Amino acid sequence: MTHIIDGKIIASQLQESLKQQIITLQTDKNITPHLAVIIVGDDPASQVYVASKERNAKNIGMKSTLIRLADNVSQSELNQHITDLNNDKLVHGILVQLPLPKHLDEEMVINLIDPKKDVDGFHPINVGYLHNGQANKALTPCTPTGSIILLKSFCSDLSGKHAVVVGRSNIVGRPIAEMLLQENCTVTIAHSRTQNLGDICKQADILIAAVGKPHFIKADWVKNNAIIIDVGINRIHNTETGKSKLVGDVDFDAVQVKTAAITPVPGGVGPMTIACLLQNTIKAASLSIA
Amino acid sequence: MTHIIDGKIIASQLQESLKQQIITLQTDKNITPHLAVIIVGDDPASQVYVASKERNAKNIGMKSTLIRLADNVSQSELNQHITDLNNDKLVHGILVQLPLPKHLDEEMVINLIDPKKDVDGFHPINVGYLHNGQANKALTPCTPTGSIILLKSFCSDLSGKHAVVVGRSNIVGRPIAEMLLQENCTVTIAHSRTQNLGDICKQADILIAAVGKPHFIKADWVKNNAIIIDVGINRIHNTETGKSKLVGDVDFDAVQVKTAAITPVPGGVGPMTIACLLQNTIKAASLSIA
Repeated sequence: MTHIIDGKIIASQLQESLKQQIITLQTDKNITPHLAVIIVGDDPASQVYVASKERNAKNIGMKSTLIRLADNVSQSELNQHITDLNNDKLVHGILVQLPLPKHLDEEMVINLIDPKKDVDGFHPINVGYLHNGQANKALTPCTPTGSIILLKSFCSDLSGKHAVVVGRSNIVGRPIAEMLLQENCTVTIAHSRTQNLGDICKQADILIAAVGKPHFIKADWVKNNAIIIDVGINRIHNTETGKSKLVGDVDFDAVQVKTAAITPVPGGVGPMTIACLLQNTIKAASLSIA
Repeated sequence: MTHIIDGKIIASQLQESLKQQIITLQTDKNITPHLAVIIVGDDPASQVYVASKERNAKNIGMKSTLIRLADNVSQSELNQHITDLNNDKLVHGILVQLPLPKHLDEEMVINLIDPKKDVDGFHPINVGYLHNGQANKALTPCTPTGSIILLKSFCSDLSGKHAVVVGRSNIVGRPIAEMLLQENCTVTIAHSRTQNLGDICKQADILIAAVGKPHFIKADWVKNNAIIIDVGINRIHNTETGKSKLVGDVDFDAVQVKTAAITPVPGGVGPMTIACLLQNTIKAASLSIA
């Protein structure tokens, strides 16, 4: 029987434990973790995402501030907001919602955020700590961290397993490959230039799909009893009904019967990303007084 | 016919071009790149290695300073030397020869070196720049950089090839895997916990051996016409003759007949490491006035 890894339940358990950590921080250290989110413009998907971050932060007793900037904000004004938050001792986590409008330099923004408040884990020094085995110092990126928690909820010892990561983005593919390596997996990173992708995927004891293409991973690419983490969240439209729905990178219905365990979309990795963002904010708050 | 990739020739060509770059920097910018090396204690292998760095630096017209510290130097005294070099505007590259005696904290030392002078490329922010695709800002580690140059000297377009890296150290395995990914290879990282290592290696169009075990890679692990970069440098002793010699991680005599190209040991990756160290020092000097 295939096990469906329920990201909603696991995220809600994590959030419950974070709520307790916040109470402890307030009681023992008189500190309330505080997440500041900057959003530029009015992209609907970003709005929904940011609102969800704020709602979840407040639900667990975290302070949350949302800074809305106009679509045409200048680089220098955006930078000034980040610098102000860097200098504000009462702010522990800073997140600038990506993507930014084209006239703004994302790399500059990422590099400007104080690494100790970089709850997205995108600053080069946090990337370096992750890849250098100094992850105790690092804020690690949320989606990869959440994916590993889901994986380990089903299989606590990943040592020696062959993990194939499809996708090599800085945000998901690369960090998740590094985390799997730290779990002692043999790790293959595949991507758009990979030849015979199906044959590569078919070797995977653990398959991570992070390509952003609906139903990209086919049933005949999957080894029997593989564990699959589907990081993709793709919106597809049904032209007949006019409705749209969210699907993953994996052809779920056809694939799931072959797997030992698989995450659904929605309700898999998605809820974990926000929970791990909140976890990073608490870690940043704790480190700020260490 | 197997092509033996001659690291001595390629390193000497690189050093020749670095010599010209130094002349240009002196003429145009009135600056002579300056490498400072700290060596602690009197480990014979480290002494040989450091002497070779100094000799090569001087050969291409680079200024070189060697700071010898006693085996029992304190952490604070070592740190003070690093801080002084960080603050010295006439020093462009700083290298602390590793390994350090056990009582010293290598991680602290690596993190203390000014990232802009970190010619070993081990500082977390340089690691982050490498893995984050901001390598133009980074000083990248020397042995991986040199290995990629050797590889590309034989095959300039690596796109789509399956590279298997055996070994996952911070110094070689991990950064070389990242560099191969940037060359659009499909990349597998294997290591001591990997199961069926022979089968994994057998898939490799490009095989990187970085395990530090003499003759570890066997002929039947190697695909016909693979390209092999042997990063290992192991000293083995012949008990009959009493003599010792250097060998790689690859069982060279048995393996080489199957390959399209292979690096020998000695005379492969070794000479490239020092050339790339000098290249990093020149890059650091150039960036210091940019």
